[in-house]
Amino acid sequence: MADYDPDNVFAKILRDEMPSQKVYEDDATIAIMDVMPRADGHVLVIPKAPSRNVLEMDAADLGPLFAAVQKVALGVKAGLGAEGVTIQQFNETAGGQVVFHTHVHILPRWTDIPLKPHTGQMEKPEVLAAHAERIRAALEG
Amino acid sequence: MADYDPDNVFAKILRDEMPSQKVYEDDATIAIMDVMPRADGHVLVIPKAPSRNVLEMDAADLGPLFAAVQKVALGVKAGLGAEGVTIQQFNETAGGQVVFHTHVHILPRWTDIPLKPHTGQMEKPEVLAAHAERIRAALEG
Repeated sequence: MADYDPDNVFAKILRDEMPSQKVYEDDATIAIMDVMPRADGHVLVIPKAPSRNVLEMDAADLGPLFAAVQKVALGVKAGLGAEGVTIQQFNETAGGQVVFHTHVHILPRWTDIPLKPHTGQMEKPEVLAAHAERIRAALEG
Repeated sequence: MADYDPDNVFAKILRDEMPSQKVYEDDATIAIMDVMPRADGHVLVIPKAPSRNVLEMDAADLGPLFAAVQKVALGVKAGLGAEGVTIQQFNETAGGQVVFHTHVHILPRWTDIPLKPHTGQMEKPEVLAAHAERIRAALEG
């Protein structure tokens, strides 16, 4: 098991050393727009406590994390007018993980619209901001 | 929101009206081999309480469900000698859901081995049994 690297990008976002488009925050988590979305409204829920991935999390932190995932998923679905939601969570490089701070992907889905491929292209900030605004409105509504 | 259908396949498995290859059980969940695995050792964690999907679960049930997911994922990774784990959870048809009782997919992963496509083909029971045995041994070890 590798050590947790406190200089990963989500740790920096949690310390406000890097910008993000935040849609939700509670005592245990934040939720931000994924800058390389695989669907319009693709959000990441990130626990504040440091851990590399779900396999290594303190089990007591799982309930608060997935309570936030449920809440944010409902906000994403309502805000984007989605028909479904796909939740993904990747552990270790072979499991699809790129950033080694635990995070859960929330992907709003529509019939017959496949997920976009991983292009490595950043979405325009104004597009992310517009989606974030719809999600925040749904969560506050 | 549709009604929960108590005749879905996972409800029948929970009532022992249909067979399954079980690898884990606790007060809140069971874990069984997926009969159409997208990776060797593909397991489903299923909460005992009825709900259509994560969006509709009682929030109080999320902690016990994902505590089981973490525990079983570690057993799957150790039992199959996997390098990583991908966790997926589908909500509504557009989100990829087929059976409308909440379930979480645990997919052991190895570098450069993609997930198998959805073929609709059932895996041989003896292959599932062999994988189940390795997972049970890891969970009990």
